[in-house]
Order: sequence, then C-alpha cells, then structure tokens
Amino acid sequence: MRFVVIGGDAAGMSAASRAKRNMPDMEVVVLERTHDVSYSACGMPYNIADPTREIEDLVVRTADVFRDKQGLDLRLGHEVLNIDPETKTVSGTDNDGTEFNIEYDKLLIATGASPIVPEIDGLDSPGVFVLKGLAHGRAIKKHLDTAGVKQAAIIGMGYIALEMAEALTALGISVSLVKPRPTLLPWLRPELSDMVKRELDENKVALYPGLEIIKVNRADQGFDLECKDITLPCQMILVAVGIAPNSGLAVKAGLDLGSKSEICVDGFMQTSNPDIFAAGDCADAFNIITGGRSFIPLALRANRAGWAVADNLSEPQTSLPGIVGTAVFKVFDMQVARTGLTKGEAQKTGFDPAEIMITANSRAHGYDGSSPMGVMMLGDKKSGRLLGMQIVSKEGAAHRINAPAVALHNKMTVADFYQTDMAYAPPFSPVWDPMLLAARVLLKEMNR
Amino acid sequence: MRFVVIGGDAAGMSAASRAKRNMPDMEVVVLERTHDVSYSACGMPYNIADPTREIEDLVVRTADVFRDKQGLDLRLGHEVLNIDPETKTVSGTDNDGTEFNIEYDKLLIATGASPIVPEIDGLDSPGVFVLKGLAHGRAIKKHLDTAGVKQAAIIGMGYIALEMAEALTALGISVSLVKPRPTLLPWLRPELSDMVKRELDENKVALYPGLEIIKVNRADQGFDLECKDITLPCQMILVAVGIAPNSGLAVKAGLDLGSKSEICVDGFMQTSNPDIFAAGDCADAFNIITGGRSFIPLALRANRAGWAVADNLSEPQTSLPGIVGTAVFKVFDMQVARTGLTKGEAQKTGFDPAEIMITANSRAHGYDGSSPMGVMMLGDKKSGRLLGMQIVSKEGAAHRINAPAVALHNKMTVADFYQTDMAYAPPFSPVWDPMLLAARVLLKEMNR
Repeated sequence: MRFVVIGGDAAGMSAASRAKRNMPDMEVVVLERTHDVSYSACGMPYNIADPTREIEDLVVRTADVFRDKQGLDLRLGHEVLNIDPETKTVSGTDNDGTEFNIEYDKLLIATGASPIVPEIDGLDSPGVFVLKGLAHGRAIKKHLDTAGVKQAAIIGMGYIALEMAEALTALGISVSLVKPRPTLLPWLRPELSDMVKRELDENKVALYPGLEIIKVNRADQGFDLECKDITLPCQMILVAVGIAPNSGLAVKAGLDLGSKSEICVDGFMQTSNPDIFAAGDCADAFNIITGGRSFIPLALRANRAGWAVADNLSEPQTSLPGIVGTAVFKVFDMQVARTGLTKGEAQKTGFDPAEIMITANSRAHGYDGSSPMGVMMLGDKKSGRLLGMQIVSKEGAAHRINAPAVALHNKMTVADFYQTDMAYAPPFSPVWDPMLLAARVLLKEMNR
Repeated sequence: MRFVVIGGDAAGMSAASRAKRNMPDMEVVVLERTHDVSYSACGMPYNIADPTREIEDLVVRTADVFRDKQGLDLRLGHEVLNIDPETKTVSGTDNDGTEFNIEYDKLLIATGASPIVPEIDGLDSPGVFVLKGLAHGRAIKKHLDTAGVKQAAIIGMGYIALEMAEALTALGISVSLVKPRPTLLPWLRPELSDMVKRELDENKVALYPGLEIIKVNRADQGFDLECKDITLPCQMILVAVGIAPNSGLAVKAGLDLGSKSEICVDGFMQTSNPDIFAAGDCADAFNIITGGRSFIPLALRANRAGWAVADNLSEPQTSLPGIVGTAVFKVFDMQVARTGLTKGEAQKTGFDPAEIMITANSRAHGYDGSSPMGVMMLGDKKSGRLLGMQIVSKEGAAHRINAPAVALHNKMTVADFYQTDMAYAPPFSPVWDPMLLAARVLLKEMNR
C-alpha cells in the first residue's frame, strides 16, 4: 500500500511517522512544498524574542531522521498542484520545475492554513511579514537582525499578534497594534479583554482598535502605515489577522468544504472521498458541545488527527470524538484561557445561555502574591449544561481551563461541576476555587 | 426553630451563616470551645514563615461580625460535653466553669479533628507543639519569637510536616524530619516522592524516615530528641503525624462511626440520627470512585458540607455527591497534587488496576524554563475507567489535577480522557499535555 501525505508539518508528519510504525511495509511518501518539516510553529514568537536563538532550534526532528531512522520517503520542495481522485494520482512540480505524478492508495491532505493578507496597498513590500511557517520566522529574525527596527506595527489583535507584541517589546521595539474592527479579542467577555488591555498598556504597547488602515507608504527609514487619523512610522509590519485553510487542492478534487472553505472530515478524518483523509489546519472538527462542525485549527488537534489517520488507513478504527474549543495564550504576564462556547455561539446553536463573570483571587486569604482572576462562565438554562468558560489571570488560568474542558466532554451540568472535588492549598487558590465560585454564581443566574 | 452548632470553624460557621441567610427568623446558636472562629487554618505555615505577620491576619471574619452583622448567637469558650438525643439537649461548661444546657431542633456536630500525639516520653513538654487550631499557631509564633530556635525537629512527614519544614527553613532554622515508618509520602508513587525528597535535600532539610523515636530529653538549650541511633538537639519540636476526628460527643449520642471513629453521614450530612448533622473534619464522605465511605478531612469539603447542612435543615434538599480524593500541597518550590485512588486502594476496592508513571516537560520544546513533571496515572483494566492521578512538578501540578478530578466525577474512561481537548501554548505545556501523554501510556498498559 502506498500512503501519500501532502504537507510535512504537525498533522502530516504525525500521520506519516505513525503509519510507518503501524505498518513498516507500507510505502509512505510525504510531499512538502517548503524545506521545513516538524517544527514547533507555536514557539516562533518566543524564539524571535531571543536574538541568541536560531529559528532552527524549533525543529523537533530533521528530514534526515524521518528518512533514515523512520524510512519515510520525504520529498522537500515538492508542491502538489492537483489531485485526481479518478486515477488516484497527485501531480505537481518540484523546486527544479520538474513535474511529478504519484499514485496513491490512501491520501492525506495536510496542507495547513495560510495567513490572510488584507487588500491594502503596499502590504507586499519587503519588511512586511506574516507568521505561520518556519520560513516566515526565519525572515522576521533576519529583518530584526539587520534592519534596525525601532518601531513595529502589527495588523491584527489575535493571539499571534499579541504574542508577537510581547516578543518585539522584549527586543526593545515600540509596538503598535492596529485593527479596523473595534474590539480587542471580541470573543472574550469585555471585563476579561479589559484585563488584557491593561496588561498591554502597562507594557507600553499602543492599541488602535477600530482604526481603518489606508495604505503602506515607503519612508526614508522603513514605512509609514497610513491609517484614518494617524500615520504610524515603523521599520517592520506584521500582518496577523487570521488564517484561511489551504483547501484549493480539495476543491479541485471535488471534496466537501465547510463555510470557511475548510475541508469537512468525519470522526475518522475521512473526507467526502473515503480514500482521501484531511487533518490539521486545513480540516474541520466535530464540536462536541454544538453537535456541529467547527473550524478551530490548533496544534493538539492537528497532531491527534494525524495519528488517527495513520490508524485508519487499512480500516476505520480510531474515531475522534471532537473538540470543545479549548485555547490558551500568554501576553506578557497575563494568561488567557478559554474552552467551550461564547454566549453568541451558544445562542446561535439554540441553547438558552446564561452568562456570569466573577473576579476572585488566585491565592488564599492571607497568602502573599495573589493576582485577580477573572472568570466568565456560561450555562444552558434549559438543560443545565455547562457551555463554556474563560479565565484570565497572571497565574493559574492556563492549567485550570482543562477542568471545564473535561466537563464539556462529559456534557456535565453546572450543578454537577459545582460539586467537583477541586484542589485547595493557600499558594494555589482560595478554599473555593474561582471556577467553583463562578459555578455558584452561574447557578443562581440560571435559576432566576 | 433553633439550630445549634457545635464548633465554630470552617464547617460550623459556614452552616451557621448560611442557615441565618436562608431563614433569618431561625435562632442559630454556635458553641465554640476556643476563642477563635473562621480563620484560614491552612494558611498557618505561611503565616509562621513570616515574622512580620500576626496570626490574627488569618482571621477571615471576627466574632463580632458574625454576631452583629449576621445575627448569630455565637458563644465562645463554650465546651459541649454531652449530647442527649432523647431530650434534644446539649450540655457543657463555659470558660468560667458555668454549666449550660441548650435545647435544639436541629444540631450540627462540627467539632473537627485533633492532632494525634504518639505516646512518647516528654512530648508533653513546653516547646513541643502541634498545629491545627489558631491557638497552636499563636503558640508556635510566640515560641519562635522568644526561644531562639536554631534547630527544629518535626515528627511526621505528611503535608503539614512538609509545609512547616519549609516555613521554619525560611526563618533560618535547621529542620529535621523524623518518622518511625520507612517511607516519605507512602501514598505517592516512589519516583514522585523521590522528587519531593530531592527538593527537601536541596533545601537542606534533614530526612530521617524509619527512625524509631525513644524520648524527649530536656537539654541546656532546649531538647534532645533521642532516637534509635541518633540524638537530635533542637529548641522546638512539632508533632505532625496525622489527625483523628473529634467524635467523642457522637459516641455519647450513640451515632454511627466509621473505622477511624469519624462520624458517618449521608449525602445530606445527616448522621444516623436525622436531627443531628455532622460536617467538617469529624465526618466522613461518600467516595465517588469506590462507592464507599472515605475519611479525607479537607477544607473545601468542610465548607461545602457546612453549606449543605444549612440547606437541609427544614427538609433534605442538597445532597452532596461526594469526594474523589483531590489534594495538593507545596513544599519549597515543588507542587504535589493527587486525585483519586492509589493502586493499593484500587485493589482493595476490587478494581483491576494498571498504573504507569511518566516524566514529561512542563513547557514546550524550545521554550525556556521547563521543569520535569512526573505523572502517575491509574486505570481499571476491567471497566477502562480512570481511577487516579498524581502530579509532581515545580509548576502546573496544582491546577492540572482538577482536570482528572472532574473526569473522576464523571466516571470517565482513560480512553475518553485521552481524547479531551486540553489547552496548549508553549509557556504552559508540550502540545500533548503531560496528562494526555500519561493517558496514552496507560492505555497501552491497560490493553496488554
């Protein structure tokens, strides 16, 4: 059997490696457009923040290891341009311009996603960057090394934008965050995004939400980012407004796509063509809370989906139950964590949501060093079910969020969650963990 | 209706306050033996570590607030000596030696637990302490202030012993931990207790497990703690070998007790006499994993049980599902967290347990500052259920443990836990959280 994988990052390499381990006789061909495989993409902002580090430090396993130790037929610089499901063939060109055609028995599309670049004049200039692949990180580090960047503008305010604001600030660069839409982190409860805003303020990051961007002008020392009422001089621009799935090949192959052009897969990671799997940032996932499909491309899902594909090559056996929408990021000293739905998402799904917000202490009464912890909690008045939680704090938000995530997987009610036996010691929480305090307040709100 | 509460700490005051809030016309009488109510007992080691703090800083609410603001009839220095369930009367003496008799409609026994003091000659000397109530903390602080303590011996190696070892070390005192039994933290997987041992070693705490204690001798400058092969000179001794429930009154009242003399209660916190409730460190709890009873006296359960009692005074309405055995403590920089059963406990219960242990990193590949994280995970081969987890690390253990605790409440399988959508960002975990890595390894072990 020949298993062909398009894309050699998290999902693709996880699938390829595990497939070869599962069935050593299988021929596993990986076609990767770039020359980078298997690296920690999420680690790039932290690597960029440290000029003593090479971007190559993020490589988890080299191409040679995959070839020599694992026996994969890994072909770098190979861009697939077409999939023909009739003849079960992929075709494309390599870096030398040579065309290739490869037949597959099973195919995995793990082409990932690409940063969205808005239609703004001048965003194609050198010195304007996106950050998704290792090549982007490499280019940014080189620019920072050589271009004497004193001011940077970041277009977008999502977690990559915020992580990069922290990274560039650490390098002594003045950072401005700009976006045309009015709200910082619109999915976050306003009191919680205010906590993030204050953290950015304290670290001298300038925030310009609701600012229309007109164009990028070349200036003597870099650029002027021309906006509606203000012009931001800078020597570097990062565009981080979101990503779109790389599903062009899937379109050509006639596969079903979702509303954001992500590739639809079932629990076995099979697309609408049973010989073609999709996994990683180009594919969707079943949402356990809504019962529908979600496009929340994150690293854990990509790795897990890759493994599942490998297990399902000969026959469908590993079905993934899906995701609940857990995510976390750090911006300066603030941890921002979420799981489940927002109130708006819950309403769209047909739930009758009640939402509350509390602020508690991260540590016990009388224990030094406590930080405020903001908790948003969402429940369904009809079923009593927990629907979501958001936690923002300087400590304990990131790891706490796994508890409500597990509860969401179990379709637990808020009342039952309130009764859970959580850990308490003065350095780590009040006697009633902030999540339990939130559940208590939410129960009252739900029973109104 | 008159509600009488014996004991004015966590469970007692929670019940009394909430009862009065629920039914403002109710007469609520609290009889407290000491002169302290409502304080953070768990905070004492940290308070003791800081000579600039008063022990009174740990008081959450004063007696006056309970009386004046909440309308409770709070009587300090009132020791109850007998309960007569026939006449529904409690009787005792107050600090002046005056006898009192009070009739109740509903009674709560919230008498807590007392430190166990082994039968060793000289342990009744001044300078030998236990630590449970605020009075103990006050006495220890006074001794530290005045007795020129350079060396301290702690008998016992449980979490109070370890927290106090940290506290006394912070004060520049040389600490020796002694216990006759051979194992530090015998409920902890050996690789994990070794991590704790190394942390104690690095902080110059001397550990003497398996050391028979013969007697305490007076010396010029304090004591000599005479043990089998060694004599430990010290100016302070702390006895922290465990606690026993204060259930003498319950015995007199003819109530059902468990194997450790704890008072048996049902989900409504009712004892075998329906007009008498028990809550806090003197009472047991239903164990959700074993389906039996557990005596694991901790603060969250005490508070929660107190609240439940208040809700159940007029009619049983709040039933507590029980505990899963979650606990956490910090010793120096090491966090030690557990939930669920140990392998031995699982075997006794009739499970067919498989146990694994992994060591992972607390942060992602390439992110600085990672600490080793040890995870023990336990599952039942017959049902596939998760049975327990232990986590030890310098970061992220305490808050992580709530996720498996929630899973245990839901009787989740290890396979389902392995599929949960956990948070990932490089500062907080590897892509596969150590708990997921552990689940993967445990699944293999269970399927052998």
